[in-house]
Amino acid sequence: MKTENLLKQIDFIKEIDKIKYIQRRTKLFNSDRRENDAEHSWHLAMMAIVLSEHSDCEIDLLKVVKMVLIHDIVEIDAGDTFLYDQNKNHDNTAAEMKCAERIFGMLPKKQAEEFVQIWIEFEDGNSNEAKFAKSMDRLEPLLQNTSNNGGTWKEFGVKYQAVYDKKKIIENGSKELWNYAEKLIDESVEKGILAK
Amino acid sequence: MKTENLLKQIDFIKEIDKIKYIQRRTKLFNSDRRENDAEHSWHLAMMAIVLSEHSDCEIDLLKVVKMVLIHDIVEIDAGDTFLYDQNKNHDNTAAEMKCAERIFGMLPKKQAEEFVQIWIEFEDGNSNEAKFAKSMDRLEPLLQNTSNNGGTWKEFGVKYQAVYDKKKIIENGSKELWNYAEKLIDESVEKGILAK
Repeated sequence: MKTENLLKQIDFIKEIDKIKYIQRRTKLFNSDRRENDAEHSWHLAMMAIVLSEHSDCEIDLLKVVKMVLIHDIVEIDAGDTFLYDQNKNHDNTAAEMKCAERIFGMLPKKQAEEFVQIWIEFEDGNSNEAKFAKSMDRLEPLLQNTSNNGGTWKEFGVKYQAVYDKKKIIENGSKELWNYAEKLIDESVEKGILAK
Repeated sequence: MKTENLLKQIDFIKEIDKIKYIQRRTKLFNSDRRENDAEHSWHLAMMAIVLSEHSDCEIDLLKVVKMVLIHDIVEIDAGDTFLYDQNKNHDNTAAEMKCAERIFGMLPKKQAEEFVQIWIEFEDGNSNEAKFAKSMDRLEPLLQNTSNNGGTWKEFGVKYQAVYDKKKIIENGSKELWNYAEKLIDESVEKGILAK
């Protein structure tokens, strides 16, 4: 049984390597090199660990870390969706669910069910863990764009109100982090790197 | 206090972005593109989560995940050392300790101490968590090299005995994984992608 599980797990481990080729729009800090999903997921996991004291609710940190590590694995089939893309659906669509079932379904049954469940929980954003995980997911590109003189905001003509609306979700996980993020957004307008 | 901590944590989060530029020798699966330390660390964290049932000892999985996520951060200052490099020291040197103290030292004091401690524990390799984390660190490039027809073994003329000696450390974390790894190494010799 253990060996049977292992062979499935190894196949999964090989398959998810593909996430390293999925390019995001956002660029690395002070950089013009785009970030890929593996780098992004690593950074979110580090942020969740480092910033956990700022969560407004009690959280199971291991679960948050699992969430952010796996949250973009479905993009191996579905591709990355730009946060400010108005033509593409950001919801937990049937297509994305199919990706989740295919990729996580490579794992032994119990583990596959756990991963699909954690991914859905993240997408739904209702649990304490999902709220904090989503705070991380919104905070990282904000830090990147401010370090890159506007980054994807300038590149794709994204304005203050759109950024504010998308980033406000940070507040659901942490008021402290949202206070910080709000200041960063305001400063970006003052500096002229985010248009009002 | 919380806000003071946050500012330090944000500076640390920005600093560790540099790990995305640290290139390893090993290449992605079925690929000629080198892996960077962020991608590598993400993959080890995923492996630790997925393979945890194979640990021979009881482990604190969150601690293992923290270990593998941070284990290469010192390379921001120290650079990557190729596992089979015979001219460069692989031990936990004074130079690496200086890197750990500088980078983790950007965090609030208590957190900095925790991270330095976890990094030392990984380097020492004595605790159950460190043993399993090191199994992950040795298993990933083995999977990569076998998927790349010998990969860095061929590229740098690394032979069977050197591979066997370095990989045997996997056994300290998991006999099941070592059995699998040993078979992979033997098969590699049979296939002619690893010279005896």
